[in-house]
Amino acid sequence: MKRFAVVGHLAVTSGTFSLNDLPGSGGRMDVLCRSVNSSFFLSHDLRRDVECYLILCGEPGPEKTVLFRGAGVRHLSPDERSSAALIKKALSIPCGDEFRESTPGVYVRRGGLSRLLAEIPFAVLDEAGEDVRAAPDLPENYLLSDHHNFTAEEEASIAGYPRYSVGPRSLHADHTITVLLNEMDRRES
Amino acid sequence: MKRFAVVGHLAVTSGTFSLNDLPGSGGRMDVLCRSVNSSFFLSHDLRRDVECYLILCGEPGPEKTVLFRGAGVRHLSPDERSSAALIKKALSIPCGDEFRESTPGVYVRRGGLSRLLAEIPFAVLDEAGEDVRAAPDLPENYLLSDHHNFTAEEEASIAGYPRYSVGPRSLHADHTITVLLNEMDRRES
Repeated sequence: MKRFAVVGHLAVTSGTFSLNDLPGSGGRMDVLCRSVNSSFFLSHDLRRDVECYLILCGEPGPEKTVLFRGAGVRHLSPDERSSAALIKKALSIPCGDEFRESTPGVYVRRGGLSRLLAEIPFAVLDEAGEDVRAAPDLPENYLLSDHHNFTAEEEASIAGYPRYSVGPRSLHADHTITVLLNEMDRRES
Repeated sequence: MKRFAVVGHLAVTSGTFSLNDLPGSGGRMDVLCRSVNSSFFLSHDLRRDVECYLILCGEPGPEKTVLFRGAGVRHLSPDERSSAALIKKALSIPCGDEFRESTPGVYVRRGGLSRLLAEIPFAVLDEAGEDVRAAPDLPENYLLSDHHNFTAEEEASIAGYPRYSVGPRSLHADHTITVLLNEMDRRES
């Protein structure tokens, strides 16, 4: 299983955001929607061996985590509005301490990064990390940030984690996932 | 200059499509919007050395080409709706035989693939092509198709063109652009 977790620093935790204004009313929810797209879509196929965790840290709080599982996800189209609609639905159901399924393959629970870090051994995608092309072996699980850098508190919680880079330019989270999956595809083929 | 041209086989040529339904009312305009995103966006920066041509072949016709120039584009945000709004605006102004600027850095003209092929020497992105990582030199200009394969007529018009692949899996057009730009970034760094 490959896992990507993206921290949405401003991403709202309520399902009341507008599908017509993902950047504004969603707290840059568009970044997370594109990360879902990058995690799963192949041409005329879905990557069933991927999970994508969206860590929503915005208003009104407290933090929630939305999980897309490639193995079971349905009703997901490539456009941003499609994944946004599934996130909106997940944020509209009662949120408990354990993952609860809101639509097929999409889940939501309370808690954010610290909880996820206690469960899954992540590597961090970071421009200063080791080039993924040069790494002898690649981890399965990766943590990324949205358009904001990790906060000081987040950085403290991931100090010492292995760090990888996908190249010489600083890319958006979704583009980083695409490049990384291409490297993994090549190693598996 | 790097150039990407994406054929939108169903993409509408009228500015009356709904920003709330890019896949349906826009004729999979979402694919083209994501290709614009992939062509230009870096983290907190834009690729000023890229041009992106969108070839709109859908209803009501006749074909139009919308051009985004990185050197001059403004008002472009990463979300699909942002590029869609600029496309909608381009499709709403009178369309002539030469490129006319609709908003800063965005242009529209009559004509489609055959006209563009007569002007720019493109390579074709194709799963059966030469691996971009193995190619001694990479071309500057690339032609891609949307979610549909090139038609028989289009294939006839690009017969003999150099063909390149970005890896073992068949990817969406926007993901292909992202992987290709990563390879170009690495060669330039």
